[in-house]
Amino acid sequence: MGFVLPEYRHPDFNGAPLAGAPAAVFCACPADGVAPAGFHATSVFPEYVRMQDGHWELLRRSRMDCVIRLGTDGRPEVTEFRRLRKGDMVAVGRGENGEQGIYLHTGGFEPARQCGGEAFAFRTGTSRETSFSIAYDTLYDIMRHDRSHGRIIWVAGPAVVFDSDARAAFCRLIDKGYVHGLLAGNALATHDLEGALYNTALGQGIYDKRQMPLGHYHHLDTLNTLREAGGIERAVQQGQIRGGVMHALTRQGIPYVLAGSIRDDGPLPEVEPDVYSAQDAMRNLAGEATTVVALATQLHTIATGNMTPSYQVAQDGGVRPVYFFIVDMSEFAAGKLADRGSLTAHAILTNVQDFMVNLDRAL
Amino acid sequence: MGFVLPEYRHPDFNGAPLAGAPAAVFCACPADGVAPAGFHATSVFPEYVRMQDGHWELLRRSRMDCVIRLGTDGRPEVTEFRRLRKGDMVAVGRGENGEQGIYLHTGGFEPARQCGGEAFAFRTGTSRETSFSIAYDTLYDIMRHDRSHGRIIWVAGPAVVFDSDARAAFCRLIDKGYVHGLLAGNALATHDLEGALYNTALGQGIYDKRQMPLGHYHHLDTLNTLREAGGIERAVQQGQIRGGVMHALTRQGIPYVLAGSIRDDGPLPEVEPDVYSAQDAMRNLAGEATTVVALATQLHTIATGNMTPSYQVAQDGGVRPVYFFIVDMSEFAAGKLADRGSLTAHAILTNVQDFMVNLDRAL
Amino acid sequence: MGFVLPEYRHPDFNGAPLAGAPAAVFCACPADGVAPAGFHATSVFPEYVRMQDGHWELLRRSRMDCVIRLGTDGRPEVTEFRRLRKGDMVAVGRGENGEQGIYLHTGGFEPARQCGGEAFAFRTGTSRETSFSIAYDTLYDIMRHDRSHGRIIWVAGPAVVFDSDARAAFCRLIDKGYVHGLLAGNALATHDLEGALYNTALGQGIYDKRQMPLGHYHHLDTLNTLREAGGIERAVQQGQIRGGVMHALTRQGIPYVLAGSIRDDGPLPEVEPDVYSAQDAMRNLAGEATTVVALATQLHTIATGNMTPSYQVAQDGGVRPVYFFIVDMSEFAAGKLADRGSLTAHAILTNVQDFMVNLDRAL
Amino acid sequence: MGFVLPEYRHPDFNGAPLAGAPAAVFCACPADGVAPAGFHATSVFPEYVRMQDGHWELLRRSRMDCVIRLGTDGRPEVTEFRRLRKGDMVAVGRGENGEQGIYLHTGGFEPARQCGGEAFAFRTGTSRETSFSIAYDTLYDIMRHDRSHGRIIWVAGPAVVFDSDARAAFCRLIDKGYVHGLLAGNALATHDLEGALYNTALGQGIYDKRQMPLGHYHHLDTLNTLREAGGIERAVQQGQIRGGVMHALTRQGIPYVLAGSIRDDGPLPEVEPDVYSAQDAMRNLAGEATTVVALATQLHTIATGNMTPSYQVAQDGGVRPVYFFIVDMSEFAAGKLADRGSLTAHAILTNVQDFMVNLDRAL
Repeated sequence: MGFVLPEYRHPDFNGAPLAGAPAAVFCACPADGVAPAGFHATSVFPEYVRMQDGHWELLRRSRMDCVIRLGTDGRPEVTEFRRLRKGDMVAVGRGENGEQGIYLHTGGFEPARQCGGEAFAFRTGTSRETSFSIAYDTLYDIMRHDRSHGRIIWVAGPAVVFDSDARAAFCRLIDKGYVHGLLAGNALATHDLEGALYNTALGQGIYDKRQMPLGHYHHLDTLNTLREAGGIERAVQQGQIRGGVMHALTRQGIPYVLAGSIRDDGPLPEVEPDVYSAQDAMRNLAGEATTVVALATQLHTIATGNMTPSYQVAQDGGVRPVYFFIVDMSEFAAGKLADRGSLTAHAILTNVQDFMVNLDRAL
Repeated sequence: MGFVLPEYRHPDFNGAPLAGAPAAVFCACPADGVAPAGFHATSVFPEYVRMQDGHWELLRRSRMDCVIRLGTDGRPEVTEFRRLRKGDMVAVGRGENGEQGIYLHTGGFEPARQCGGEAFAFRTGTSRETSFSIAYDTLYDIMRHDRSHGRIIWVAGPAVVFDSDARAAFCRLIDKGYVHGLLAGNALATHDLEGALYNTALGQGIYDKRQMPLGHYHHLDTLNTLREAGGIERAVQQGQIRGGVMHALTRQGIPYVLAGSIRDDGPLPEVEPDVYSAQDAMRNLAGEATTVVALATQLHTIATGNMTPSYQVAQDGGVRPVYFFIVDMSEFAAGKLADRGSLTAHAILTNVQDFMVNLDRAL
Repeated sequence: MGFVLPEYRHPDFNGAPLAGAPAAVFCACPADGVAPAGFHATSVFPEYVRMQDGHWELLRRSRMDCVIRLGTDGRPEVTEFRRLRKGDMVAVGRGENGEQGIYLHTGGFEPARQCGGEAFAFRTGTSRETSFSIAYDTLYDIMRHDRSHGRIIWVAGPAVVFDSDARAAFCRLIDKGYVHGLLAGNALATHDLEGALYNTALGQGIYDKRQMPLGHYHHLDTLNTLREAGGIERAVQQGQIRGGVMHALTRQGIPYVLAGSIRDDGPLPEVEPDVYSAQDAMRNLAGEATTVVALATQLHTIATGNMTPSYQVAQDGGVRPVYFFIVDMSEFAAGKLADRGSLTAHAILTNVQDFMVNLDRAL
Repeated sequence: MGFVLPEYRHPDFNGAPLAGAPAAVFCACPADGVAPAGFHATSVFPEYVRMQDGHWELLRRSRMDCVIRLGTDGRPEVTEFRRLRKGDMVAVGRGENGEQGIYLHTGGFEPARQCGGEAFAFRTGTSRETSFSIAYDTLYDIMRHDRSHGRIIWVAGPAVVFDSDARAAFCRLIDKGYVHGLLAGNALATHDLEGALYNTALGQGIYDKRQMPLGHYHHLDTLNTLREAGGIERAVQQGQIRGGVMHALTRQGIPYVLAGSIRDDGPLPEVEPDVYSAQDAMRNLAGEATTVVALATQLHTIATGNMTPSYQVAQDGGVRPVYFFIVDMSEFAAGKLADRGSLTAHAILTNVQDFMVNLDRAL
């Protein structure tokens, strides 16, 4: 009882090798969108940058594969290559052990060093035959904690709303306060809204699986209706949409990002057509996540994984882990998605329908 | 409310083409284990054989890909090729529409003919994105019904006992009366017994997933212990085994078959080394099943599927469907396993752990 | 010998039910991007629209799930919802059999009607155990034919360039004239260019699989280098890029579309950030394809499948099929991708590496 | 050029910790089939047992999860639990570092120690996106070498003979001398023989994929024909079987084991019904393998993997590696199968059809 976040151990800045480390070197970008040669790339782990005055600055809202730019306030910030402007000062140096003023701290949340035998066990892969009872219990604990002491951001593919029970479970989790943001695409929203309008997904009953006459028109009619209404929010206000995930989010005022993709029909008016604007909007949510639950989508999960750090820095400077749960049916996808080298990433190999029903029952 | 078995409609023996059908022809087997040329092979569906006196005999305890032998009581029985003896009389003729005295009745449980549109929908494949809410509800209904009005036979691969919650769920389902027989192999039993002795599966904690020191010896020690004890039943009686699936089955006196395979270590004393003797023992259970639930094993599921008819004939001659549920993670396996062409076969694409936990909660 | 395209049989416009069909009705769009109620949605199949003067117009460059708009030249054109402007005239009516002046012709390339038995066989699903010899031979024939008498458009995920032999095979197929266009994303191009600069993909040798020191910087350095150079074309001209798929395409002047996605790092300058502009560019290529080969990508394959018709109309009015080959490892993906209901879609379940090597050897 | 087997480095018996190691202790089995408490279990790696006279004996024809019994010749032999007899002397002690007279030598074929970075890379998993060019080239080299300087044992599931090109490739590889033994089941042989008799597999043309009328009888007629003929060898001699894999093996006098399983129809007369007798027969072949190629079967591959050591000891005492290649479509299966912790196990994720065609072309 009583879930406790693992304690974060800061590096020992006064011992070797950090005590004698130089300040990080920042070089100017030669052109818009181009980093200086030898730029340092960030990871999902906590990284510290030694500044000119000798203090070590922990990066906030970090993300993978970006660069460290000196902000206008003189503090380092993590930014995408595409946002660089000519003359911006970007940290260079690829050492990760302080030798160039940058320190990558991978073990901050780990308990004291363990013996080799257990290290070996840790590397054991995850498959459909892995025991998941403890992963579920861990997730339940974290969800209860982060419901009021964190930000739980969901990432979801359309399969989550194809099934009646799973969709209803998602709605209840929203209403119970376990959803602080959703990252998805046009397909999830469209199929969910089709469910609200026709009780079908792609023309098939979401409970009884019956194929409706002319059911293949349902998702196009849904898109046309929503486009005519001026978007999801208006359609909810006008009473056209009376149930489902998008309805629950709208009613509760929970933010979401619908990122456009080349597969989209329609799209819905809320969908962001520019993928890099979409990335920015997603990172706004992912960057403040304390827990991410990613369901049955490779595209959005990888995108979110890239932009979510493995830690959060609170306003008081406290550091806590960001938990990242991935639910998928395939070892290939789960292995690819959960491969963050972080103790806080968990893959659960199962059907997202059962996962949602389990979660709703437990919480 | 109130689950009702679908009614079975017998063929119209007095209309065309059956009214004028000849009696089936039986020919003698030329050698042991060899059927006469042109033998008729059985299916999972109800088949009727016209006898010399003109009446149609519905095959009982049928199974796929076997032959129809005239029994010593003069009635047709379905038997494997390997059980034929020289001189046995076996039905010949490959027509299935009465033209040679044999009639295959595939639509006996279907409601009245439906229009083409729905027929098309029916063929829609099952994938991880299929909605499974109704399949679960159907399963729950059938389980409740067949708990006391049928025989629920389970087929299970070892993954069912790798996880703490799933294994506990299975034990509870046994105790609640939902298991009338189990078909499995050496691996399931060994891992379950390892769980009872060490709380691990292959040396890894079934709840906490911790790798135990020398844990890879656990399953060998389990086998050695059970072999020394003289088998599962004795080990339960002697108090060496105090929990788990095999313990629950033994305590409740529920029959099981552990079929040997070339992968086996040990094996446990209860394992049947001869696969064809194992087939006979399995068919004894499968042949009286009214519902089969097959979990995460291709080998045993295909074997069981081959030997389970899609219908049962009660002593009073009433005919009811046999339901066949398959739980697997892969479309490939599920497609292969559920491909019986029968309305009563259902595949649920998910992790068997979640499936068991769901089932236990619902029942 | 000698591959011959199947003949296309036009519908019988003079028989029932088409002879007496009314002209199609066109209604005005109520707002930008919104179709009139009851709009007709297009499919991948040939569709005919009866015009006011009574003649039937076959849609050209059709695609799935779009609408039929009356063009400025008075002829019907197939367009996306998002391209509609208020007042545009769009065909309404959901009948597909002429009853509202629209006729969907699904069997134009099929030989004369076949008996039920074979129709059943045709529905047999595709799995890893399907025999693919004839699919390969068919593909080889079509490739040889369309090399000079068609347009072969490729769709490819990054896995195609992760392997040394497969990447080299792709380059040779480009040089031999079997590639008339490529639809891909930032990842394929970046990994291919990383191969050209470092002989690695994500830092791992594409032949020897050795992990290079600081190899995880390779793809970021590649992106930065290309961004600094001003794009792929310049980098090829300047001699920075001397091999690989993007080099071969550039050297041969073969068009490609790199569609942006939310997963992208960088991106490369050639990548289109707006997904709907990307759709338009993709449809420019896909719309003139006579054969599509789609390799190991769900996102781009589904997108391309949606915008590719199952037939092409030549300038002389001749109609030929568009062949669509999908190569993927998973039954789930292949089933989803190949599900066009068209005789000309083929899934081959295999690793794209072997597929490319096979294709290169055979052609 | 020219493939060279890696050199085997024996342990340093004269340095710590082996110089001072005690002799291994052997204890008597308390009953038939039961090992003494604390028995030592073998692995796939070379293991040395210190004998009373102080010399270290390298285990020959070892296998996983068996025990070390003192043979009648006073030398240690590796044997299954089920073969133990009361009073047999079996090595005890679970230390693997000489402390109890047993030494497990895992790194005998590895080059000198490498730095941590590369060790990390080595653990990188194998997926469909892994580059396989070098794995193929390695396999080709090994096959050419072992064709005349080793024993190449194949393990195959039925999918290998479902496709016309793959089946023909297999036959050619047999004829070219690349097959020294085959481990398979009733299904592979039956489908192959159906191909010889009807040019179908399960009634479907192995090249043209056409469903033959009454084709579902083909495999039963095949079984019946072969049973009547008295088996495969006779059917080949009598000219009933004129092509395919079983024909090629029979003609060339190459040994094979067909192990029975509970899925079997028939079975063919050559099939071994007792799975533990089948294990013994399989181990006779696997135990002398220098290369194993395992194709598209979990059951037989796991069984064979368990009984195949990672090394062979020649009569002159030279030690060489045993290469183990696994070809499968699923990461789950490949991961499970290739997880021998041995440098000599390789998984290739692809369709076995392409694999066979590739191999045949290259050799």
